[in-house]
Amino acid sequence: MKQKKFILQEKDIPTQWYNIQADMPNKPLPILNPATRAILKPEDLFPIFNEACSRQELDQEHQWIDIPDEVREMYTYYRATPLVRAYAFEKALDTPAHIYFKNESISPVGSHKLNSAIAQAYFCKKQGVTNITTETGAGQWGGALSYAARVFGLECAVYMVKISYEQKPYRKSIMQTYGSNVTPSPSMSTRAGKDILTANPSDNGSLGSAISEAIELALQTPNCKYTLGSVMNHVCLHQTVIGLEAEKQMEMADEYPDMVIACFGGGSNFSGISYPFMRHNILEGKKTRFIAAEPSACPKLTRGKFEYDFGDEAGYTPLLPMFTLGHAFKPASIHAGGLRYHGAGVIMSQLMKDGFMEAVDIQQLESFKAGVLFARSEGIIPAPESCHAIAATVKEALKCKEAGEKKTILFNLSGHGLVDMSSYDQYFSGDLQDFTISDEEIAESLKSADILNK
Amino acid sequence: MKQKKFILQEKDIPTQWYNIQADMPNKPLPILNPATRAILKPEDLFPIFNEACSRQELDQEHQWIDIPDEVREMYTYYRATPLVRAYAFEKALDTPAHIYFKNESISPVGSHKLNSAIAQAYFCKKQGVTNITTETGAGQWGGALSYAARVFGLECAVYMVKISYEQKPYRKSIMQTYGSNVTPSPSMSTRAGKDILTANPSDNGSLGSAISEAIELALQTPNCKYTLGSVMNHVCLHQTVIGLEAEKQMEMADEYPDMVIACFGGGSNFSGISYPFMRHNILEGKKTRFIAAEPSACPKLTRGKFEYDFGDEAGYTPLLPMFTLGHAFKPASIHAGGLRYHGAGVIMSQLMKDGFMEAVDIQQLESFKAGVLFARSEGIIPAPESCHAIAATVKEALKCKEAGEKKTILFNLSGHGLVDMSSYDQYFSGDLQDFTISDEEIAESLKSADILNK
Repeated sequence: MKQKKFILQEKDIPTQWYNIQADMPNKPLPILNPATRAILKPEDLFPIFNEACSRQELDQEHQWIDIPDEVREMYTYYRATPLVRAYAFEKALDTPAHIYFKNESISPVGSHKLNSAIAQAYFCKKQGVTNITTETGAGQWGGALSYAARVFGLECAVYMVKISYEQKPYRKSIMQTYGSNVTPSPSMSTRAGKDILTANPSDNGSLGSAISEAIELALQTPNCKYTLGSVMNHVCLHQTVIGLEAEKQMEMADEYPDMVIACFGGGSNFSGISYPFMRHNILEGKKTRFIAAEPSACPKLTRGKFEYDFGDEAGYTPLLPMFTLGHAFKPASIHAGGLRYHGAGVIMSQLMKDGFMEAVDIQQLESFKAGVLFARSEGIIPAPESCHAIAATVKEALKCKEAGEKKTILFNLSGHGLVDMSSYDQYFSGDLQDFTISDEEIAESLKSADILNK
Repeated sequence: MKQKKFILQEKDIPTQWYNIQADMPNKPLPILNPATRAILKPEDLFPIFNEACSRQELDQEHQWIDIPDEVREMYTYYRATPLVRAYAFEKALDTPAHIYFKNESISPVGSHKLNSAIAQAYFCKKQGVTNITTETGAGQWGGALSYAARVFGLECAVYMVKISYEQKPYRKSIMQTYGSNVTPSPSMSTRAGKDILTANPSDNGSLGSAISEAIELALQTPNCKYTLGSVMNHVCLHQTVIGLEAEKQMEMADEYPDMVIACFGGGSNFSGISYPFMRHNILEGKKTRFIAAEPSACPKLTRGKFEYDFGDEAGYTPLLPMFTLGHAFKPASIHAGGLRYHGAGVIMSQLMKDGFMEAVDIQQLESFKAGVLFARSEGIIPAPESCHAIAATVKEALKCKEAGEKKTILFNLSGHGLVDMSSYDQYFSGDLQDFTISDEEIAESLKSADILNK
């Protein structure tokens, strides 16, 4: 019988995270203090983030960073996740390509987000922090952080993007089951939220605005830190357990990926699956392609601009050098809530600039079509975000079919969609639509990114 | 680091199912033709079930039955499932007991039901059947069968208990994503459904009535067979992959269970985890306790009677010798839809009579309380059905604490609750209640079971 899954034992769970910053030929441009334009040092991040993560954020020296025992022990609750050969999906596509996926959906909260949530909650706890705040888009990150907070005995407050709060009430229930406080954002509980609601009382929210609210609450609450589910370098660092496991598992399968594909919101699941393989491109000249699948409704990599910009809507964060649509960009209400973010993380932006990765944009209907085909083949109903990676995989697999090429494709199944069934319902009822942003809209929104010239 | 999960490779997935009927000291009483009272032969089941399953149903000879390659190949899509030591849950209960659970929730459809769905769909396909029908309570079985039908290219029609259809709309969406037709039951599409709705237009439905409708449709459709998700001997047979894997995994953990616990609706997940261990009680005199956790709202094992009764509400099935509350029993609308069934499977009923297993009833609020404690410890939010097994585990773990006994408890986590979050919502809002059935109600309902004297 053909081997379907490649399974690691607990002892094979990585003991170190991989820090790609140390290996990058061109280091990311510095993060800047928005008022003084001074280059940020770790200490400057301490008011917002825990100290360990602040140091990881700016660490360009250490190629490998130890995973604390307490974090690795919690990883054993659900890791290593399987690497799966998608035989049925290949057959459905009638492609000569070999398609593998890393199944992060089997984590208790249904996605990869737990990998960083556990690490961040642990580092906060170790430092004596008692309360943490965060934002969540689709609710995957909020659910993960809620459980991680519970594990380490922290109080947790989550600002959930309002459109997701309404579209995905069960995500909210999941966070509440773990014991978190969940507030739809924008809310009247912060200055940032009030400002947004004053300007537009029916604002649907976005990751950018929810981040502003969570940071504001963290700054105003004693012994409280903010945590972020993507974008930041330390989050991407924690997610490298995905790719490090996948690397061993691809060896078990006796293959090496020609392409690595992941959906792209802030970049954490993309980084997680990509960096460990990308280091062989950087260090040994391997030629693997790394493809970020972003929604056409929020095309920062394919149509954005490399600029210094804020990470949040209200402008509370440091200035980040990144591909952005402008921090004032208002993404359309697509169901892939986790991809509705205006910018790409700093490391990915530099890698993109330097040609180590590429990007493709996927329309909403195409993403669900691919997701349904995948569900009917492999059994797993993918999260709307993951559907974007699957759609990009379909594109490449069909190119292989046309060219008669037996390429090896690896994609990250970042999460399942069992809590997103209302979006599938709408897809089947024909109530979903595609969104195309005009060049004018992008140009207008990009004005908000032009910080250094202001 | 303490080992948390015990992981098998694909080659360790069982190649045979375990048929406990061959080993039972007292064989189950025969199943009877309701009209003639003649003892049923496999051929008599052919109009309803596929032939292979009909033979398995009445097989009291073969201790081991080969798993076809095609079925075992589909098992590799999600099996083997992990055996997990619940360290965090033990700590939360402050118990000296060692608690293990078999994590069936990681299947793509979120529960153990796929183990039999794949087998039944395969045997139907092999026989040339083109359409299959079934009922579903909570929706777990319907989702599993929908995917299995898709895998083997069968059309699938599902009658879903109306109260679950309304409480759990996302389960319906899952079935539709796999391509099934889903009808709330009772419906006007069958005589059985019409009769029920005529008597009571606001009938909430039950597994019994949905079974009647699915059988009726199968009988009236060319080249169509009915499939059942629990109760029947062949379903319990297929589920023994759970316990057979767990047996190997408990060996890896160097322990043997003093208690095996599972929730109990028709008995399939209970059988699956129990029989492989119970054979050592039967054949070698081991003293493991097997505890079925049933809802107080549907207490067939703890308060029902051993009688010949119908398996469905309308009386379409053969007469089954079983612990029953009477096939006219109307269970209250608890959220554990999969446990709302009036009878216990034939094998389990005999094992219960012969003292090989015991039962405990669990109230709804107690079940959710245990489920929330488990979620906050182990991260996995359990299905409302599985919460009953967890509550029974809590009871036994606390007895261990009181007695200072380090017993080993194994329970089956039959499924996750990510599609049942509305029930958790209601639990947290205080909108859920307990249900206690009076002796008079049970006596009244049991009149419907008194078939042989009619």
